[in-house]
Amino acid sequence: MKKKVTFLPDNVTIEVDEGEDLLTAAATAGVYIHAHCGGDGVCGKCKVKVDQGDVHSNKAMHLKAEQYEAGFRLACQATVSQDVTIVIPEETTKDGKALKRKPKTTRSISARSLDSIIGSWSVAPPVEKRFIKLEPPSLDDNIPDLQRLMRAIKQKCYDCAEPTYDHPELLMDLPFILREANWEVTVIMLRGKRAEEPDRIIAIEPGNTTDKLYGLAVDIGTTTVCGILIDLNSGEVIAEASAYNEQISCGEDVISRIIYSQRGNGLKSLQEKVVRTINTIIETVCKEVIISPSDISYIMAAGNTIMSHMLLGLDPKYIRESPYVPTCSHFPLTRAASLGVLAHPSVRLFLYPSVASYVGGDIISGVHAAQMHKSQELTLFIDIGTNGEIVVGNEEWMVCAACSAGPAFEGGGIKHGMRANSGAIENFHIHPQTLDPMIITIDRIKPCGICGSGLISIVSELLEAKVIDQQGKFNRTLKHPRIREQADGFEYVLAWGKDSLMGEDIAITEVDLDNLIRAKGAMYAGYVTLLDSVGMTFTDLDRVIMAGNFGAYIDLERAICIGLLPDIDREKFYYLGNASMLGCQISLTDHRRFRERMEVSSLLTNMELSENPQFMTHYMASLFLPHTDMSLFPTVAAKLAE
Amino acid sequence: MKKKVTFLPDNVTIEVDEGEDLLTAAATAGVYIHAHCGGDGVCGKCKVKVDQGDVHSNKAMHLKAEQYEAGFRLACQATVSQDVTIVIPEETTKDGKALKRKPKTTRSISARSLDSIIGSWSVAPPVEKRFIKLEPPSLDDNIPDLQRLMRAIKQKCYDCAEPTYDHPELLMDLPFILREANWEVTVIMLRGKRAEEPDRIIAIEPGNTTDKLYGLAVDIGTTTVCGILIDLNSGEVIAEASAYNEQISCGEDVISRIIYSQRGNGLKSLQEKVVRTINTIIETVCKEVIISPSDISYIMAAGNTIMSHMLLGLDPKYIRESPYVPTCSHFPLTRAASLGVLAHPSVRLFLYPSVASYVGGDIISGVHAAQMHKSQELTLFIDIGTNGEIVVGNEEWMVCAACSAGPAFEGGGIKHGMRANSGAIENFHIHPQTLDPMIITIDRIKPCGICGSGLISIVSELLEAKVIDQQGKFNRTLKHPRIREQADGFEYVLAWGKDSLMGEDIAITEVDLDNLIRAKGAMYAGYVTLLDSVGMTFTDLDRVIMAGNFGAYIDLERAICIGLLPDIDREKFYYLGNASMLGCQISLTDHRRFRERMEVSSLLTNMELSENPQFMTHYMASLFLPHTDMSLFPTVAAKLAE
Repeated sequence: MKKKVTFLPDNVTIEVDEGEDLLTAAATAGVYIHAHCGGDGVCGKCKVKVDQGDVHSNKAMHLKAEQYEAGFRLACQATVSQDVTIVIPEETTKDGKALKRKPKTTRSISARSLDSIIGSWSVAPPVEKRFIKLEPPSLDDNIPDLQRLMRAIKQKCYDCAEPTYDHPELLMDLPFILREANWEVTVIMLRGKRAEEPDRIIAIEPGNTTDKLYGLAVDIGTTTVCGILIDLNSGEVIAEASAYNEQISCGEDVISRIIYSQRGNGLKSLQEKVVRTINTIIETVCKEVIISPSDISYIMAAGNTIMSHMLLGLDPKYIRESPYVPTCSHFPLTRAASLGVLAHPSVRLFLYPSVASYVGGDIISGVHAAQMHKSQELTLFIDIGTNGEIVVGNEEWMVCAACSAGPAFEGGGIKHGMRANSGAIENFHIHPQTLDPMIITIDRIKPCGICGSGLISIVSELLEAKVIDQQGKFNRTLKHPRIREQADGFEYVLAWGKDSLMGEDIAITEVDLDNLIRAKGAMYAGYVTLLDSVGMTFTDLDRVIMAGNFGAYIDLERAICIGLLPDIDREKFYYLGNASMLGCQISLTDHRRFRERMEVSSLLTNMELSENPQFMTHYMASLFLPHTDMSLFPTVAAKLAE
Repeated sequence: MKKKVTFLPDNVTIEVDEGEDLLTAAATAGVYIHAHCGGDGVCGKCKVKVDQGDVHSNKAMHLKAEQYEAGFRLACQATVSQDVTIVIPEETTKDGKALKRKPKTTRSISARSLDSIIGSWSVAPPVEKRFIKLEPPSLDDNIPDLQRLMRAIKQKCYDCAEPTYDHPELLMDLPFILREANWEVTVIMLRGKRAEEPDRIIAIEPGNTTDKLYGLAVDIGTTTVCGILIDLNSGEVIAEASAYNEQISCGEDVISRIIYSQRGNGLKSLQEKVVRTINTIIETVCKEVIISPSDISYIMAAGNTIMSHMLLGLDPKYIRESPYVPTCSHFPLTRAASLGVLAHPSVRLFLYPSVASYVGGDIISGVHAAQMHKSQELTLFIDIGTNGEIVVGNEEWMVCAACSAGPAFEGGGIKHGMRANSGAIENFHIHPQTLDPMIITIDRIKPCGICGSGLISIVSELLEAKVIDQQGKFNRTLKHPRIREQADGFEYVLAWGKDSLMGEDIAITEVDLDNLIRAKGAMYAGYVTLLDSVGMTFTDLDRVIMAGNFGAYIDLERAICIGLLPDIDREKFYYLGNASMLGCQISLTDHRRFRERMEVSSLLTNMELSENPQFMTHYMASLFLPHTDMSLFPTVAAKLAE
């Protein structure tokens, strides 16, 4: 249930989910509230007054009884339960003058309905169960057991081709299962890769087990592996789990993993680790709904090219060396158990194909989910991470590329950078006059670092407040306790040690800014290079789809402000979240949608950016906030000119 | 080179191969020569005189110098090297009268050209090697290694579908093989099962290895396993080997093997034994031509249903129990190495499908070789053994059946029966007046038993000489030292102990005769029942094809005489020899012929004779020599009436 929150005196109204805290609501609305501790409730700075309606409040600490009575609350501790109007106390300068807050327009676009993009799908999974009653054999009818089974299957399905079957497992047990089950069995069948291909029997169970049919969708990330368990009879997601990819112990990014794989037993060890991670997820989801891992009949997975190679035990050696050649792009259906995955020996694991060494199955799965191959609209699909993957195209053609953005968006190369975990600063506002920070952390605890979305907020706010210039350099003329010069250069202190989790100051440095500018510059140069290659510009785009977990946390205005996203009509932007997982989920639920993946692969053409001179030119032009050519960013130019 | 041998005084001329001995030539021509020792050269009875021309003679023993000078030779020791006329000395009765020999007409039909039956085939095996040169990758062309390989293959073959490939073996090594071989490799490909199916890459070798391409055809018999090694570039058979099926230690026939398979580890042990036998053959043929077993790229095999099940480790339990249901009829292409066969892991083993529990892949392979599915001629195809398999039909329909003839034709249930090994009496003539035997053994050594073809000769000769009657009972009125009554009934002594290998008398008994009559009766009843079922009789038959090693040794007239074969125009009979092996050989050499096997399987309908009342009626009528209805055997009736 959405509730309205109106902030006075700015008179900004925002709709939030019931249970949202006021600090987050204010940050989302672009309303500055003095908040130093990330939302932990300890600094006691974020006092606000409830004017109309009421809020739930957990803690009354840092508030005197009379303040509480008068309607004061800590914004970070108060959650919305009804429409409410909140008054934010005006701060005063040392000389008593009220400081005016300029209301911002950083509000995230409201969640757009994705139905128009991902469409609907039916429950008709690529694996199915059929309950079959066979005529027992007699002297007049003593065809072999397998033929008898095939005949019964054909009788149930008039115009299907005769199915194939798994040899030899199926044949070994067939005579005994049939007789023990008194000729009533359930066959588990894989649907053909194409409509005209025959189905394949992968297992036979005694009796009628059709009510139990489960599938697992897995997104194999370099950092995190996520899985969802789907009841394939209903299409419902019945359990979810995620875990860090155990390969992290062998290196944070794909390049260090490839290096690790070249050691003696490195590849095998990496394979075992990712398999162990998947097994952890299988155990977790199965425990949750009390089924056995052997009840899962299909595993639909997607990962980048390197993760896919490693899962299958394929050596990624030549992916890293120019000209960056993977072993293969399409991975045949593999038996999960043969890889060590905790699954019935009959169960297949499908891995989405990759396009190139750095445009993997996760991207294909995402593009597939987004149905770009079925839309006339010219779409820019982007997944921002260490490697930014970009796809441009529509139902007629698609071109894709990876650009090595560097790890800044994942907290790498940033002095106090961290992954998007508890305590990471994920949202930031600066008071335009006091230059004091309002910080919000994941899980609303004391801050311990900065994650990607926080970084974008910080840079954008510092730029708008003119604390930094368009080259990412600090304004040396500003005198402020939070802006200081250290051994490694200028920095802005986001949180003093007393307000931070570790007790150390958390700051953003000029080196950090430089790294961020390079990262966002690589992405932007990627968009331009791809569009250029097909003779188009941003104005031709109908849609921009942001995939990846990171995408969902990006504040659109701020991302445009720093030049990470193009400055076009905000209505064209969509967040798809974990599109890779969504693609797996849809494919696992609907085999017709699954079959269409072939169209996606066949439409996609990869461009190699790493040694492309056009890309380098565009990249150099992008090493500015937001860009050297400000005509490309009219709304940002207007904002900065204010 | 054929040479003419004329025997006087009968004035019978026969064409024989150069090097044939005179005893065998006489036996084949139906000319009686006194010969007790089987052709060993020790009894010295088979003296003949060379009248015109000359012969090679190994031994002069048992001949006085003046006899040798006068042109006398031992028939068993003299071999034909030129056209020759031989005088057989007339024997005399005790009272000095010459004994007249009645010339016989038991001569085997001359070998008929089989070309009209088996047709021709080309050298285009189901597995092929292609030498491929790939463009090395570059930044402008950095598609994955597998795609690069596929592209190069497609460039070599314009309208082929993209091949599939073996996963994961192929992918694991692909990047390294390609680079180490400097992008020049040989791919080993299986052709699709049907013309429209894509080929499949099963292995990749560095460099050009196309000159080495071998295949193995294997006939997996219950008793003997035979293999031939074929150079698949030329289609030539380059080595052959055979070995006893090691399963013999678990039982002589298929039923005792099934019983054995039901013991604790029985099935596994049986599988290992037949695999070991195949491995022995592989080692033998490979040694002979000095290649490695891993150079063999395909194994084409056929065996009866039980042998096929056991090779694949499928439990044959329900084959033995009514209603006699095998696990399956079609066996998918298996990886030979996965069964334990000494082969490269990529190599496939094809097993001819079976029709029913007792009509196996060996029969399909034989019918396939005989191209019954492509001929308008109504053909009776028979394979005589412990189980007689019978197929009747043409290109439009085929009906088949197995009849349990019992082991008589393989020496089982016969007092002095034995397999067709050294020392087995394989040919027999009786002197119509003295009732003395002329015996010829395999390898021309002293006799040690009777094999199937010998048994047919003996029974037919005893019947014609009226030593036995049409019920298989000895003529009690005959007084002859060789006809005697023992504890187990009447018998005829074929060889006295002094002339036999073991020093014991070798005889044929009334019990033996009874067993033989049952065996041949079952076969004949089988033919009639099958023909009946389609409303036909023997007069409708265009051809009778005899398959199996046994078939080649059957004397046609004698087999008809005892009622094992129908009494029809002799020109309709063909010997196909080991048709099962021939089918494998043709399929291994020509994939188009191989593909046609599907038509054979789809045309064949099995009839279960074991509990069929018509069959029982025909069987009872056949328990007579040759049959209770003599109108079915006009030539035999005429002969017996003489």
